[in-house]
Amino acid sequence: MTIQFLTDLDDLLSRLRDLYRELHQHPELSLEEHQTAERIESELSDLDVEVQRIGGTGVVAIIRNGDGPTVLARADTDALPVTEQTGLDYASKVDGAMHACGHDMHVTTLLGAVELLTTNKDAWAGTYIGLFQPAEETAQGAQAMLDDGLVDKIPTPEVALSQHVMPTEVGTIGTSAGPVLSAGDSLKITVHGRGAHGSMPHNSVDPVVLASSIVMRLQTIVSRETKPGEFAVVTVGALNAGSKSNIIADRAELLLNLRTYDTQVREDIMAAIERIVRAECQAAGSPQEPDFEYYDQFPLTDNDPTVNTKITEAFTDYFGSEAVYETKPYTASEDFSRIPNAFDIPYTYWFIGSVAPEKYQRAVEQGTVAQDIPANHSPFFAPEIDPTLENGIRTQVVAALAYLAQD
Amino acid sequence: MTIQFLTDLDDLLSRLRDLYRELHQHPELSLEEHQTAERIESELSDLDVEVQRIGGTGVVAIIRNGDGPTVLARADTDALPVTEQTGLDYASKVDGAMHACGHDMHVTTLLGAVELLTTNKDAWAGTYIGLFQPAEETAQGAQAMLDDGLVDKIPTPEVALSQHVMPTEVGTIGTSAGPVLSAGDSLKITVHGRGAHGSMPHNSVDPVVLASSIVMRLQTIVSRETKPGEFAVVTVGALNAGSKSNIIADRAELLLNLRTYDTQVREDIMAAIERIVRAECQAAGSPQEPDFEYYDQFPLTDNDPTVNTKITEAFTDYFGSEAVYETKPYTASEDFSRIPNAFDIPYTYWFIGSVAPEKYQRAVEQGTVAQDIPANHSPFFAPEIDPTLENGIRTQVVAALAYLAQD
Amino acid sequence: MTIQFLTDLDDLLSRLRDLYRELHQHPELSLEEHQTAERIESELSDLDVEVQRIGGTGVVAIIRNGDGPTVLARADTDALPVTEQTGLDYASKVDGAMHACGHDMHVTTLLGAVELLTTNKDAWAGTYIGLFQPAEETAQGAQAMLDDGLVDKIPTPEVALSQHVMPTEVGTIGTSAGPVLSAGDSLKITVHGRGAHGSMPHNSVDPVVLASSIVMRLQTIVSRETKPGEFAVVTVGALNAGSKSNIIADRAELLLNLRTYDTQVREDIMAAIERIVRAECQAAGSPQEPDFEYYDQFPLTDNDPTVNTKITEAFTDYFGSEAVYETKPYTASEDFSRIPNAFDIPYTYWFIGSVAPEKYQRAVEQGTVAQDIPANHSPFFAPEIDPTLENGIRTQVVAALAYLAQD
Amino acid sequence: MTIQFLTDLDDLLSRLRDLYRELHQHPELSLEEHQTAERIESELSDLDVEVQRIGGTGVVAIIRNGDGPTVLARADTDALPVTEQTGLDYASKVDGAMHACGHDMHVTTLLGAVELLTTNKDAWAGTYIGLFQPAEETAQGAQAMLDDGLVDKIPTPEVALSQHVMPTEVGTIGTSAGPVLSAGDSLKITVHGRGAHGSMPHNSVDPVVLASSIVMRLQTIVSRETKPGEFAVVTVGALNAGSKSNIIADRAELLLNLRTYDTQVREDIMAAIERIVRAECQAAGSPQEPDFEYYDQFPLTDNDPTVNTKITEAFTDYFGSEAVYETKPYTASEDFSRIPNAFDIPYTYWFIGSVAPEKYQRAVEQGTVAQDIPANHSPFFAPEIDPTLENGIRTQVVAALAYLAQD
Repeated sequence: MTIQFLTDLDDLLSRLRDLYRELHQHPELSLEEHQTAERIESELSDLDVEVQRIGGTGVVAIIRNGDGPTVLARADTDALPVTEQTGLDYASKVDGAMHACGHDMHVTTLLGAVELLTTNKDAWAGTYIGLFQPAEETAQGAQAMLDDGLVDKIPTPEVALSQHVMPTEVGTIGTSAGPVLSAGDSLKITVHGRGAHGSMPHNSVDPVVLASSIVMRLQTIVSRETKPGEFAVVTVGALNAGSKSNIIADRAELLLNLRTYDTQVREDIMAAIERIVRAECQAAGSPQEPDFEYYDQFPLTDNDPTVNTKITEAFTDYFGSEAVYETKPYTASEDFSRIPNAFDIPYTYWFIGSVAPEKYQRAVEQGTVAQDIPANHSPFFAPEIDPTLENGIRTQVVAALAYLAQD
Repeated sequence: MTIQFLTDLDDLLSRLRDLYRELHQHPELSLEEHQTAERIESELSDLDVEVQRIGGTGVVAIIRNGDGPTVLARADTDALPVTEQTGLDYASKVDGAMHACGHDMHVTTLLGAVELLTTNKDAWAGTYIGLFQPAEETAQGAQAMLDDGLVDKIPTPEVALSQHVMPTEVGTIGTSAGPVLSAGDSLKITVHGRGAHGSMPHNSVDPVVLASSIVMRLQTIVSRETKPGEFAVVTVGALNAGSKSNIIADRAELLLNLRTYDTQVREDIMAAIERIVRAECQAAGSPQEPDFEYYDQFPLTDNDPTVNTKITEAFTDYFGSEAVYETKPYTASEDFSRIPNAFDIPYTYWFIGSVAPEKYQRAVEQGTVAQDIPANHSPFFAPEIDPTLENGIRTQVVAALAYLAQD
Repeated sequence: MTIQFLTDLDDLLSRLRDLYRELHQHPELSLEEHQTAERIESELSDLDVEVQRIGGTGVVAIIRNGDGPTVLARADTDALPVTEQTGLDYASKVDGAMHACGHDMHVTTLLGAVELLTTNKDAWAGTYIGLFQPAEETAQGAQAMLDDGLVDKIPTPEVALSQHVMPTEVGTIGTSAGPVLSAGDSLKITVHGRGAHGSMPHNSVDPVVLASSIVMRLQTIVSRETKPGEFAVVTVGALNAGSKSNIIADRAELLLNLRTYDTQVREDIMAAIERIVRAECQAAGSPQEPDFEYYDQFPLTDNDPTVNTKITEAFTDYFGSEAVYETKPYTASEDFSRIPNAFDIPYTYWFIGSVAPEKYQRAVEQGTVAQDIPANHSPFFAPEIDPTLENGIRTQVVAALAYLAQD
Repeated sequence: MTIQFLTDLDDLLSRLRDLYRELHQHPELSLEEHQTAERIESELSDLDVEVQRIGGTGVVAIIRNGDGPTVLARADTDALPVTEQTGLDYASKVDGAMHACGHDMHVTTLLGAVELLTTNKDAWAGTYIGLFQPAEETAQGAQAMLDDGLVDKIPTPEVALSQHVMPTEVGTIGTSAGPVLSAGDSLKITVHGRGAHGSMPHNSVDPVVLASSIVMRLQTIVSRETKPGEFAVVTVGALNAGSKSNIIADRAELLLNLRTYDTQVREDIMAAIERIVRAECQAAGSPQEPDFEYYDQFPLTDNDPTVNTKITEAFTDYFGSEAVYETKPYTASEDFSRIPNAFDIPYTYWFIGSVAPEKYQRAVEQGTVAQDIPANHSPFFAPEIDPTLENGIRTQVVAALAYLAQD
């Protein structure tokens, strides 16, 4: 399949390359994407689109183009607290902030798609919503936009779409029905002991021993309580108790991270954690009930099979079947799905490659992909601008036209 | 028994009360006892004694009084990083520093003893060494004095003595042969894992799980490997690993404190710790050997039976048998014994009460001694100046005369 | 699709029903299938087939029918040490033995297929091998036949097939590419302590504590070392140490069972178990290396995608698409795959239903399938003879003809 | 001190040596001491004593000798389920039974003392009770005699005495005030899981993991909850769960043995065990409360200081100070104290040596006492008849006369 208005993008790409480099040089952390939002608005101001600021640093562009379906495409906009070490000439100018997860590429490709759809309205009909969401990294941005009335401020879409650059071969597109990104939940647990001098353990309830016993016991949630083969992660990322060798502290703090692909599994794990922690506190003779505080909760990204099939077929038609593969689920998490969930609409989320083919093939042949190619969140993460940028624009347009194209 | 020159101490006590209050108001932390050392030197300068500065802030006073034995009596001089909450009119004027372990009383009583022995040389013969040692709380002071040549700079004593104020009834003296204070050793252990994203435990060697397993395993040293009834404490005072829920850290740090009354038990425990930690690292597939770093090592205080008997009999003769009791060993530790050990001489260490009798009896009757009477290191620790000060001077003199008295 | 010679099976079924009941009444345990083997030989003796006894109680029937592919179909023949509680009029007459896994149905349906193919040679061409394998339950039978020279004694097949009755709806057939049954490995671990009187733990190396620590540590293989979502089971089915409260034993014995769908995962787990157990023995100061003894090792059953597709399409053509579903992998294990693996040929393994539809639907609606319908190995396991028997014959023939049919 | 009637014991010893050998050859297990009881009665029948059978196989001999104190001396009579391997010419003739704890020596020496006191009534005044108690090894015999009315059937003693042969140097006597033998309690704990196939842990509550976690947690009772230096033993002597690798069992059984020297410590430990086990069952999601069953409960043997001093002085007077030493407490247990406790009277319990001096000294010098000299309960345990027998008679008489001697 050919799409006429995608045949010659040289001018557009020339401008967007500069924009990408500029965004990359000026990363902003979650909820602080003020300049980024203004830059997006500035780009959109030249186009025939309705622009709204929603949720602080969120920006929405609506292209109304007659009767037809409404499609929402989302890009996230925030950077990470990472100090860039790529040595690129367009590397981050901000110490301690870097677009290490490629959101600058997401912004740029979605702006490209919005421009192309705005200037080629005869090729489609319906409504296209480009949504630029802040604070994905902290799971706050989608919720912030919803809290600011997103559902009432924009037309209700039929379908929502989002894409992510990955350290896979540029030109390839990974799609899949069902769970593609895990639900992620963080949990702070404080358990209470009784402090004492280190030489008098009998006067204490030792929180180090209590916390250690909890950690060992928590392993059984995955090893024994979860159905074999079911995806489930219970990580105790931090355990901190005490500061001196000869003082038994009065509490220990554990930070847990959970990952699941299934709502029931997620709830079962949460219940098991609470059951185990409470019981271990009783075993220890803890003087006080433990405290549980959930935070950084990412929803499951669970692609609708019908939408995924439609988009996958569109990609296959346009890019060829060799470009499209069925991706395995990633263990990472996203907050994108909060938006379609709030509208109660289906969605799909796909992955686009960003590594030069020869570089990728060499790493694959050496069996060292994971080590050799800097992955998202690495201070060395560096998508190839070309042709990642061009491909990312095309995927957005092709996906949109799967719903909006005029036959 | 009466000792003539101890019968009327009013003038001395009047001056020393003021000195005690002044020292109490100006506490200095370990290795920073500069003003305290100068004050001690100033007090000694009025007396016919040889004074040396040894080990930075250590002060030694030597009274040479003809042929006879040489006796060393030691007082420690440093304060603790505690903010006083007693509300006394002579409370510490230094925020974050307090004589919460009574070393100001040790200094004052030893100065009193030195003065009395200097001014009553006809009552005894030999050499008396008053040693004012810094930095007991951090186990650094005795070693600092030894490192500065103490053994060569002063006469070799026959015997060494030291006393400590305790929250027991004023007027009572606790003595015992054998171990009275434990050996104390601190140990920092760093175990190495392999960091990874929290959702990818299979790429990690999880240091939180490793450290937790170590903690559980270390319990067996006391519960299974140590002879039942043998004193042994293995406390993991601190366990710190990781700082974020979704990042698996690459190391964990454990701070251990050991307490023992027996050299072989101490060595066995150290060997067991190292054996367990190394093996647990192997069980975890740790990529690097663990690191062990000992610090704050306090030697065993193990009273010589002959010296203890001699001193105990002298106390009984002088104070009456009802004043002297056989103390149980304390779990706390001291660095005093490094000094006699360096000279290879016997020693004894005893405890003097500092709580008003009626207050002490009430607490005993209510079974609440430990709770009601502020113990050493408490921000409320407050020895009764009278008659603790007087008693403490008398115990020092009586103990000295047990060796030095002219019959 | 119709197959002419499968249209009227009344006479055959009448005879095979009796045979099934007779086999069911006379179950024989693994490696003791003497009467069963003789009964199979007796049935085959009336047919124009070559019959061999291989591997003690294994029987092979070869039908040579001109040029064409060679297909091997396998049935297992042994019973389980279970006392039947079905109350059926044809229940087991042997106390402590029961065809509780349906192998009697496997024998009967394969005999039916052999008879039909023998008597309808004009409908196909090639060679059909009916292989009746003993001792599946103990993972010994396939190996016994191989050890007895199976590979040299029969023609080399192009493909191997096997089927199993399941407590699913009769008339349905479950197929799948890839792993459908897990690899299963049992492992006996003996760890050595040092015995002592219970009141003298310091003279012991306590094997109960050692074994307990191992069990807790083994949990981390699945919870931390295995990729989330990867199928892996490490069960400590038995832990036995000591027999008296006041005697510390000198050893502990652990029986482990492993289940995996991936060869690398299996090897990684085995290595992790050995690493952990050895290290824990070191942590305990064990006086002797642990002993590891593998037993009851079942290979992975990993269906060839091409063969599975061919068979699945044949089933769909013959039985209709509503009868054929894609099965999820089972966690159970089989030794069938040793045979195709020895010939280095592809294979597939499928599941046929055996529960009356109304009974199955009722249980499904009540959400109680697992509880209500006796599963394999239950003393109440009872396939409906009709139409399970008929269906099982047809699946064998249809699968064979997928390779052997004359167009 | 000399005691006239102890000066020439040749005839008595000649007879008692034969009796000892005969008893040694015919050991009887706990509660089965029928022949032993009859033999004791037969020996006593020749003497002027009142004899009663109490508690089945218990025998009491009362010598009334005018006004004066009443002293009870107790010997235990049962053998152990051990097959003798000494090779002695008077070794046990009973397979699986042996006087491996020296109770035959206890019986013989007490009979000797009874005979001497009966035939030398002019040397003392008062009442002497020789009590031959069955079933000490199983903690049943003292209770059996009490249940049969011992307190009402014999005069109330002022004091109770008992002695035990030990693998220490013959001729030495170990005495001590306070605890000399521990309280011993056995406890059977059954924890409940939920059985499942080994490949389906998610359907189970795994009792092996539950029991293992309990074992690890129980270690903290001694390591953290008990005051350092306090004698306390919590041994899990047996842990048994499951019998097949691929079946998750539905329960685990733990047999614990506790040893303490202090009633409060004992109660605290029992409470801690119950707290930990109950909580661990909750942590596991156990479907049923755990079961606790105490058995083989031995009381503390806590020597009265006054009685001990009196007896120790008597031994020192008679045997010389070099023969008497202050024993350390043993970790073993006894049921003797139930008898004085039932009468609410003070008691003491002492230890007599049974190893030839040269043999003992050699072992001491080689530092191998524990290994080289067979201890009680060993199949090689073999007290030297001479002079152990003679000494044991003398200790009984000397101890009795400490209370009964006519000045």
